[in-house]
Amino acid sequence: MADYEAIKKELEGIAIEDNPALVKQKSRDFYWYSPILKGELENVTGDLIVSPTSEEEVIRTLKVAFSHGVPVTARGTGTGNYGQAMPLSGGIVLSLAGMNKVKEIHPGRVITEPGVICSDLDKQTRAHSGQELRFHPSTNQTATIGGFVAGGSGGVGSIHWGGLRDLGNIIRLRVVTMEAEPRVLELTGRDLQKVSHAYGTNGIITEVEMPLAPAYDWVDVLVGHDDFMDSVRFADALAHENGILIKELAPISAPVPHLYFTRHKPWIREGQSVTVVVVAPFAMDAFEAFCRTAKAEIVFRSDKVESMKGIPHAYELAWNHTTLRALKVDPNFTYLQVQYASPNHVEKVGKMVEMFGDEVLGHLEFIRFNGEIQCAGLPLVRFTTKERLEEIMRLHEENGCPIFNPHRYTLEEGGMKQTDQVQLAFKKETDPMGLLNPGKMIAWENPDFDFKSGQNYLFPGLEALGVA
Amino acid sequence: MADYEAIKKELEGIAIEDNPALVKQKSRDFYWYSPILKGELENVTGDLIVSPTSEEEVIRTLKVAFSHGVPVTARGTGTGNYGQAMPLSGGIVLSLAGMNKVKEIHPGRVITEPGVICSDLDKQTRAHSGQELRFHPSTNQTATIGGFVAGGSGGVGSIHWGGLRDLGNIIRLRVVTMEAEPRVLELTGRDLQKVSHAYGTNGIITEVEMPLAPAYDWVDVLVGHDDFMDSVRFADALAHENGILIKELAPISAPVPHLYFTRHKPWIREGQSVTVVVVAPFAMDAFEAFCRTAKAEIVFRSDKVESMKGIPHAYELAWNHTTLRALKVDPNFTYLQVQYASPNHVEKVGKMVEMFGDEVLGHLEFIRFNGEIQCAGLPLVRFTTKERLEEIMRLHEENGCPIFNPHRYTLEEGGMKQTDQVQLAFKKETDPMGLLNPGKMIAWENPDFDFKSGQNYLFPGLEALGVA
Repeated sequence: MADYEAIKKELEGIAIEDNPALVKQKSRDFYWYSPILKGELENVTGDLIVSPTSEEEVIRTLKVAFSHGVPVTARGTGTGNYGQAMPLSGGIVLSLAGMNKVKEIHPGRVITEPGVICSDLDKQTRAHSGQELRFHPSTNQTATIGGFVAGGSGGVGSIHWGGLRDLGNIIRLRVVTMEAEPRVLELTGRDLQKVSHAYGTNGIITEVEMPLAPAYDWVDVLVGHDDFMDSVRFADALAHENGILIKELAPISAPVPHLYFTRHKPWIREGQSVTVVVVAPFAMDAFEAFCRTAKAEIVFRSDKVESMKGIPHAYELAWNHTTLRALKVDPNFTYLQVQYASPNHVEKVGKMVEMFGDEVLGHLEFIRFNGEIQCAGLPLVRFTTKERLEEIMRLHEENGCPIFNPHRYTLEEGGMKQTDQVQLAFKKETDPMGLLNPGKMIAWENPDFDFKSGQNYLFPGLEALGVA
Repeated sequence: MADYEAIKKELEGIAIEDNPALVKQKSRDFYWYSPILKGELENVTGDLIVSPTSEEEVIRTLKVAFSHGVPVTARGTGTGNYGQAMPLSGGIVLSLAGMNKVKEIHPGRVITEPGVICSDLDKQTRAHSGQELRFHPSTNQTATIGGFVAGGSGGVGSIHWGGLRDLGNIIRLRVVTMEAEPRVLELTGRDLQKVSHAYGTNGIITEVEMPLAPAYDWVDVLVGHDDFMDSVRFADALAHENGILIKELAPISAPVPHLYFTRHKPWIREGQSVTVVVVAPFAMDAFEAFCRTAKAEIVFRSDKVESMKGIPHAYELAWNHTTLRALKVDPNFTYLQVQYASPNHVEKVGKMVEMFGDEVLGHLEFIRFNGEIQCAGLPLVRFTTKERLEEIMRLHEENGCPIFNPHRYTLEEGGMKQTDQVQLAFKKETDPMGLLNPGKMIAWENPDFDFKSGQNYLFPGLEALGVA
């Protein structure tokens, strides 16, 4: 056990929390969306929350932690879904939410500290010059930009811009290393891949430079169809309209909208599948014309309701907010993350819909991927057993629909199921003692792990927490 | 012969020009890019140039012309390439260049009179709120927005937004009809297709509402390759990068760049093919990273030269400015307009390059088309005979590369080679006497014309001008 009394003394002047209940609260995210992770990560907690308010304080904290051999797990506001920022080996949880100053705003880009909430950032760039982030998670109002970069992949706006992995969707990151004398590195271009979506395993992000897009008074629209596959075909055709500027496009299968979109319920018929669309205001004429030809019914539009009071943003019906809304009402739901690659994405969706019926309810997010329109799926699964969940995933993969497993806490198992050599090599440089967010990068913990074994990796550190 | 003395009297108060030399000058465009049209349209001239400065004056003019049975051909600044605004039956040329007031600028859209020059419009929207047109012709500095809408299709920015035909790329048009009592119509949504790219044959556009995109300090870049097909593959891969914001992407085959881009020549090696790219300034890091991985050499970038004095915009090397630059030096060049449809566009280009070698020099414009990346070609052709030109076009079409024939002055022959029923039906409503730009819509002039006959349509009105 590390000497936390000494550590606290050495960190004097930096905000610290050691009340176990509060520490545990700040050691969690939305891992409980997964019944698997719920079991595995329930007892995870850090020992100390450290909340620096400047890069200098980050450096001081890392220096102290390094000298004591204490793990450090960076955290924004804990809106991840797979334990990205949960400290599997305890230690220090480095809460960066206090580093929330927006530093510079220019045409097309913003420079900010990592802890600013995405919607606060948008508010400031909008007020400054009518700009906003290209895309944000559905947790716009609670997630930090740094957390999004470190643990997210895409979101509301990805229909236009693709994801964080794409060159150009992050401009620059400033990163502090975990060494006896921490270094400060500036990453651009392809080097960004070293730390984006690396869960803070190989550096602490202290500054973020992001591209901006114009901010408009976006119109929230729900389009209804009696058949989910009609929604899917409608969305696919709309996604291919070059000139109609939209920010979000998500078909969601009945009965989800009517049952779980409680505030929008008055506008949604029972049995109706709904496509959530966010449209630029000046594109509404064109959008309506498109719907007319497609014989698609607009059931809700935010610019025509009497009041939006109490009605959430449409993007808060999409991405993992869809899952959240279903879970809130029926805790037996969980979800998957599926890739339906173009050009046969619609066909692949149809096959899965037919195969699983009511057990797996369709929820798609149309996105741009390598310059082409395709869809990602976050289908809702009526959970029965772990074995059946694994089988459903296997059946997806066997039918050409790769799964990005949201029931795994490691980078590899949640992602490409192989070692990311770039991120691993960078960790060797930046975190030689392996103290940053231990247990998340299998390639570091167990270089011989066989990703083809079909076995779930279990971080040894977790055993101490009594996980079966 | 119409009574022009009476007409002039009735139009008193509206600017009129009847000096035959000046009238002829304002009856022309860049039809001479085509050796075919050069012969056919050389003698075309109107009888009177009328230059209204308000919608009210447009209405007065149409009323007078209608009562005298005089044709009216609308014109912006005459930057078309196929005689779009040339008065095949003489009569009044309605010059709208004086109607150039920008009326309203809002987030994402502008309302303007039709006669404003595109770059002037951009200047005003940029000064107002950092916005600009989504895309513009390479004749940005000379073409009017109304002329672009009535006679153009796409341009610089189409790599991101597609073309004018796409829903959402024009918001609204206000149109005056050619009747005893001209009506004013407002068109939105799909109705825009009635008059966009109709050469003013079925209404006179008096107001244009266009969507805007953010204006940045775009960086002009030239990327060099020793082999044209390497340029094409480079451009195709770049076009598929969702996150790198570019506005223009045009590979142009050697020897064109070195020989004909005279102001850029110091940066271009002999035998080098060049890709013209216009990049957002904040995307340059990502763009450079992309070029590095692609082993592509950046030979010129406008943000690194000592002075841009005397160096044209990169977009003035592209689209039909490429043709113009070659023609200026070697008058034996002409060009084609080719569609290389996705997903096999690169392969199709390769086939044509191999088939024609030095006789047809590759020039591609990458664009978004129905949500997918593809390329349009404006290859330079070393003209020998009309027969060989026809053969080259036939060989393209036989190999799956449709031609939009720039050697024809009719809507149908330059376009889809079939009647546009929507535009025809609208003309019946708006121009019952067929007085608007006669000779351009075959479906009106000769409903029985057989587009599959292989025969070139010859407007009878032209015979009077002594065309063979």
